[in-house]
Amino acid sequence: MKIVVDAMGGDYAPQSIVAGVVEAVRELGVNVVLVGIKDQVEEELRKFDYPRKKIEIIHAPEVVGMDEPATVSIRKKRESSISVGMKLLKEPDYDAFISAGNTGAVVASASFNLGMIPGVERAAIGLVIPTLKKFAFLMDVGANTEPKPEHLFHSAQMAQVYVREVLGVPNPSVGLLNIGEEAGKGSGFEKETHKLMTEQLSHFLGNIEPNEIFSGKTDCIICDGFVGNVVIKVSEGLMEAAGTLLKREIKKSPMAMLGAFIIKSNLQHIKKYADYSEYGGAPLLGVNGLVMISHGRSSPKAIKNAIKATMREVEHKIIESMRKVISGQ
Amino acid sequence: MKIVVDAMGGDYAPQSIVAGVVEAVRELGVNVVLVGIKDQVEEELRKFDYPRKKIEIIHAPEVVGMDEPATVSIRKKRESSISVGMKLLKEPDYDAFISAGNTGAVVASASFNLGMIPGVERAAIGLVIPTLKKFAFLMDVGANTEPKPEHLFHSAQMAQVYVREVLGVPNPSVGLLNIGEEAGKGSGFEKETHKLMTEQLSHFLGNIEPNEIFSGKTDCIICDGFVGNVVIKVSEGLMEAAGTLLKREIKKSPMAMLGAFIIKSNLQHIKKYADYSEYGGAPLLGVNGLVMISHGRSSPKAIKNAIKATMREVEHKIIESMRKVISGQ
Repeated sequence: MKIVVDAMGGDYAPQSIVAGVVEAVRELGVNVVLVGIKDQVEEELRKFDYPRKKIEIIHAPEVVGMDEPATVSIRKKRESSISVGMKLLKEPDYDAFISAGNTGAVVASASFNLGMIPGVERAAIGLVIPTLKKFAFLMDVGANTEPKPEHLFHSAQMAQVYVREVLGVPNPSVGLLNIGEEAGKGSGFEKETHKLMTEQLSHFLGNIEPNEIFSGKTDCIICDGFVGNVVIKVSEGLMEAAGTLLKREIKKSPMAMLGAFIIKSNLQHIKKYADYSEYGGAPLLGVNGLVMISHGRSSPKAIKNAIKATMREVEHKIIESMRKVISGQ
Repeated sequence: MKIVVDAMGGDYAPQSIVAGVVEAVRELGVNVVLVGIKDQVEEELRKFDYPRKKIEIIHAPEVVGMDEPATVSIRKKRESSISVGMKLLKEPDYDAFISAGNTGAVVASASFNLGMIPGVERAAIGLVIPTLKKFAFLMDVGANTEPKPEHLFHSAQMAQVYVREVLGVPNPSVGLLNIGEEAGKGSGFEKETHKLMTEQLSHFLGNIEPNEIFSGKTDCIICDGFVGNVVIKVSEGLMEAAGTLLKREIKKSPMAMLGAFIIKSNLQHIKKYADYSEYGGAPLLGVNGLVMISHGRSSPKAIKNAIKATMREVEHKIIESMRKVISGQ
């Protein structure tokens, strides 16, 4: 197995990426191809001890900035790490591509260079999120902000494959994210999607309200990319704000500081539980190849976990499974 | 001043509503008209001591259920507490209407019976939410799930009036909720709205990302009713889940229980801070009359606070101010 990793993607690239890759080859025995500006990648690699044969470098002279328009990787910077890395997937030796870089650029480049799974029109990004039971798979969290009902239907089918094969949940259930439980809730778009899923999707449990996302009510939660992105960003912001408030409160009295000191490890445990990077990256599904998107602020550990999750995708041949489900075989 | 209150609306009606109204007339000296099934309302009132002249009952034989379709209050139950109460607003003696009942029915009944402020096409619901600075006004949280850009523009103008007059913030700033900070982010709808606000809205600070909602970056945060509803429900669900996780963690060790005991009051302080009911109800803006929507699970205190906020709306004549701003005077 050979996994291609964008060495230049993310806020802490290439340092964080290279460190995570080194951890992965040491612990997981995987082969990695680092794509990026060769000198910089080599300089980072020199800091570590690792089995040399396990990491290969492929030079890509350009870098897509985190704030550049999505199409830059296709139209302008054709020699960027995203572009070069993505194109490698078309060759039989390379199994998957991981990037913590510009999400829009990765989605555009994947759609353009790899094409889609037959029957699927648009790609979507899934994300494993923690719940009170264990986890749920939220999709789409940002690729397709103006989907048609069929796009969400295909997302649901692909999410079920992912959760079954990669997360090991037999017969995953699906909920449609909506602002009410009844079938008639939401806009015309939600009503039409609800109808389509009711008629054609296996194990569809109907609408799921946003306050139930973290309850673990369904294994997959399907929504459009705008709403999914709002869900994860509101959650991030709220946890940060709650943490800040707690710190402010605690500083008000020495007794509170003592109490907080005692339960510090418990609070950290919750923080760890809520940390998406514990669960690997966010798979881009629908394109004809395995592409994993990591958070722009990915730590080395997050990169390692993304590689680990990607290895399961490769082992379980999820593209083949998705192809079968979409074509109704 | 005379405020009409739907005695039958909400999960704990009429008990919770009547109790809140009694608290309000005692503490705030306001006159209240309770609309609902007379026998039931009288029975509840008998439990309390209060200045008799301050509370009047108007009989409405029907009740719109919390899960009934929005149009029931207009088409079928014309003698419901929502319908009867709303129609009172057309008479000069009554200043505002408050309901903790079926939100959709209140929105439909208000639009149908009161009509709109000239120039405004659709109503929207605002909500005061706590932030790290103080608070922000999020609008729309659920009335209009498929708005046009002009609807959001009018929402922004009305939100500014509300925040200035009722919350006392001079020259309130506005952010457009979007999944990226740059002007080109989001779907066509967001781009068009961004353009409209940039060109015509005073103190528009551009896009605000969902993770910044609780930071207090802008005074008003504008979005469509579907997304706004997702924001408040995700927040509710996440805080609940975090609380459950914390309890689970703490139960694991006696030391953690001690630590939690010490900071219990601090945690409760945060919970109180995050409790929307502390800040009154959610005003329905755009209709030609003062309508306040309370949470279906409103406590007596939440009802009292909704009445308090509504009194400020009446005192500051916000309908007149909104009419002026919308017409460009």
